[in-house]
Amino acid sequence: MLMRSPTQSLTEQLSTRFAERIRTRLLAPGARLPSVRQCASQHGVSPSTVVAAYDQLLAQGLVEARKNRGFFVREAGGRPDAPVPARDESGVVEGWSTAHWWAARTVARGAPPVNATALIRGMFHRISDKPQPGMGVFPAEWLESSFMPAAVRKVTSTRVLQDCSLQYGEPLGDSHLRRVLSQKLASLNVQAAPTQIITTVGATHALDIISRTLLRPGDPVMVEEPGWAVEFARLAALGMRILPVPRRADGPDLDVMARYCEEHRPKLYVSVSVFHNPTGHCLTPGSAHRVLQLAHRHDFHVVEDDTYSHIAPEHATRMTALDGLQRTLYVSGFAKILAPNWRIGFLAAPPALVEQLLDTKLLATLTTPALLEKALALCIEQGQLRRHAERIRTRLDAARARSIKLALAAGCQFAAEPAGLFGWVDTGVDTDALAQRMLDEGYLLAPGALFHAERRPSTLMRINFATTQDAGFWRVYQRVRSQVR
Amino acid sequence: MLMRSPTQSLTEQLSTRFAERIRTRLLAPGARLPSVRQCASQHGVSPSTVVAAYDQLLAQGLVEARKNRGFFVREAGGRPDAPVPARDESGVVEGWSTAHWWAARTVARGAPPVNATALIRGMFHRISDKPQPGMGVFPAEWLESSFMPAAVRKVTSTRVLQDCSLQYGEPLGDSHLRRVLSQKLASLNVQAAPTQIITTVGATHALDIISRTLLRPGDPVMVEEPGWAVEFARLAALGMRILPVPRRADGPDLDVMARYCEEHRPKLYVSVSVFHNPTGHCLTPGSAHRVLQLAHRHDFHVVEDDTYSHIAPEHATRMTALDGLQRTLYVSGFAKILAPNWRIGFLAAPPALVEQLLDTKLLATLTTPALLEKALALCIEQGQLRRHAERIRTRLDAARARSIKLALAAGCQFAAEPAGLFGWVDTGVDTDALAQRMLDEGYLLAPGALFHAERRPSTLMRINFATTQDAGFWRVYQRVRSQVR
Repeated sequence: MLMRSPTQSLTEQLSTRFAERIRTRLLAPGARLPSVRQCASQHGVSPSTVVAAYDQLLAQGLVEARKNRGFFVREAGGRPDAPVPARDESGVVEGWSTAHWWAARTVARGAPPVNATALIRGMFHRISDKPQPGMGVFPAEWLESSFMPAAVRKVTSTRVLQDCSLQYGEPLGDSHLRRVLSQKLASLNVQAAPTQIITTVGATHALDIISRTLLRPGDPVMVEEPGWAVEFARLAALGMRILPVPRRADGPDLDVMARYCEEHRPKLYVSVSVFHNPTGHCLTPGSAHRVLQLAHRHDFHVVEDDTYSHIAPEHATRMTALDGLQRTLYVSGFAKILAPNWRIGFLAAPPALVEQLLDTKLLATLTTPALLEKALALCIEQGQLRRHAERIRTRLDAARARSIKLALAAGCQFAAEPAGLFGWVDTGVDTDALAQRMLDEGYLLAPGALFHAERRPSTLMRINFATTQDAGFWRVYQRVRSQVR
Repeated sequence: MLMRSPTQSLTEQLSTRFAERIRTRLLAPGARLPSVRQCASQHGVSPSTVVAAYDQLLAQGLVEARKNRGFFVREAGGRPDAPVPARDESGVVEGWSTAHWWAARTVARGAPPVNATALIRGMFHRISDKPQPGMGVFPAEWLESSFMPAAVRKVTSTRVLQDCSLQYGEPLGDSHLRRVLSQKLASLNVQAAPTQIITTVGATHALDIISRTLLRPGDPVMVEEPGWAVEFARLAALGMRILPVPRRADGPDLDVMARYCEEHRPKLYVSVSVFHNPTGHCLTPGSAHRVLQLAHRHDFHVVEDDTYSHIAPEHATRMTALDGLQRTLYVSGFAKILAPNWRIGFLAAPPALVEQLLDTKLLATLTTPALLEKALALCIEQGQLRRHAERIRTRLDAARARSIKLALAAGCQFAAEPAGLFGWVDTGVDTDALAQRMLDEGYLLAPGALFHAERRPSTLMRINFATTQDAGFWRVYQRVRSQVR
């Protein structure tokens, strides 16, 4: 609800709010603004106030009107050539240009780069001080520890600091960290020598390096659906053909994969085996075996993104463990357990691929900062990270139990057996619309459409169990949900 | 000269030395091994020892024999499918497969990704304790300072550390650093608001983000020649068509650029305006103006890589200053002046391009580590980095004067007026061969072929003035040079 203010009219307040949301991508390019009537009722203002606010947004070039369809967020600054459509006297919009057709088409097709980055922007934008159900990481206070600052202090003594700052450092990454990671992988039954490991700027960078090395534009890639929006977006931005593979409780839909193999000869399959994002599913040993058989028969590589390994049991099935890094590559990072901003990830690859992957790393960023890699090595080596992860796991178990109870009480249904960090819940209403309304209340949601390669409208959403254990959120959710058509 | 040893035969010593050099890419894939006669004389062993060593390398799959041409380093591990050619009884090699044809063809065409990464690998590999003439950065001891560790200590107090580690951080990069960079750019007459600045994992990453955002595979790009090998290599790896523009003392060859514009409609021009690598040339105001006119007329973007800004005078001509970041993008970093391993670079872009560029950053690495960005901001803000740069400049001036004298005395000729960090000198002999021989003496050179898009053999080489001011290197150089045909 907007409040009258002596310094800003209601129209200005409303247009400023939308402009801010468009600028930060919380309203993604191509997204439709609420109808005038809806918006007026939501904000307790008159329809003429909304019309005036939308006119301001139109004049600023932030939205465009589409004939008989309402107002839509324009493509971002990158398309300055797209003319603002002219309105005739009746308010009807004319002047569809090629640029508009293009924009409309990409919206219809899902335009993954734009929409996924919208979610990412949301992840980084501080909506309010409330716990954020759409977040992909643990809240900062869960990650606090005393061992992390202690490890940093050890590697920032003047001598060590100069040693590891004033030269480019090791191309593969800090050798101490790679030794420690090799041991850590062995505990998951993934056998990788330190020379098979390459450190990266977070797991995202590892996936990027792999795509750029193994694929050429136009290559078909199998990706799980639902799946992590950034993966769809990056592959699309690199010009790859995405083949979405339905993810089931036991693993990917093998029939669909087999058909893709016959028809498209895919080069790669990207999978989150353990605590899959967003469903929380874990791969069964049988499925893992059959995927690897398929990979062998049809000669494709498999990337196993084990981002959630820290909160998963060691005995969880990993394809890289079965395969022994023959045609599989392992990817993980430490954003989910230690320090998201340190941006430390890594990949482990078959020996024959290491040189090519390293070339890609060097051409893209040269080396990675050794200082934080050295500190991370200390945290792992001394067992502190493992104990820290155990504490977080216990805390997450309790949070998950509370969240499930509250979600069910609020009328949600779980589309997948709850496990890991995320719940995949059915709200019964369009979650894109729900997400926009919840933003007004200071909550960021992760609507289901973001987890689909073509951004299909969905009644599902992903919740973070660590941030949905308070009744306050669910009370607001129930009220807002009842207002969404 | 090899020495007899009780534990390793001369053959083993020789094959181990070559194997190590191939593994570290100091002998690049496609490079030709010395003839048996040459090698025997260089190492003071019998021809049969060399034949036996080459046979071991052949058996290990590291080299291949080519009919009537000798032994060549095979493509790296990435092409495990390429069969090792069989030798018949007379030692003649048969069995040319498609893979071999491909390998031979890419060698003939220059295969930039492979060869440039060879140089990069060299940069990271510690050849010996001697100062390295081929290095692209200042020696670590030149960069030492007390203000850098002090800045790091300030940002690693437990509270600041947790604050900037436990969340992803700002997508554009640390806002304090971006404010400071905005002021720094203003002192170069480049006007960029903090919201136009994106921090990156070194200048290399900034160039990578720009290429991925503004170009699609197959797009023509103008790049200066001679030029920085990594730039050729990355653009080639991204599938771009490289249009090499001769770099003259006053700037790029404008006639060649104009012809490219007519014939190929290039999308981008990448330039090191100030203290160009490897020539040391600085762009004149007149050239800058004409390049921008051309860019306007033919609608291409210009990337100004100002990596050497720290050792350049503030009044040096920059295209981004003339153009006001309209169709130009500015790139720089701090590897050359503060800490190569911190991997902090940045770009400043026209406002209309910022969102797209940021999308590419987020899809490739999400954010960048704020900790080091915050420390860098302190170093710049308090004027310490500027004073540090002045000291280094003075030291470099003295080193350059000494190096020039020694280089001339050793018979080198300067192909460009010496300035900045690098000298571009003519040795009169093939510098690829020279570089291999100098490696035996513990010196890494940067042969001229690496600065050409097609890796043409060259008698030129790039020297680093900071590491060539001692007579010791030049004595070895003169001796070895006299032995190279």
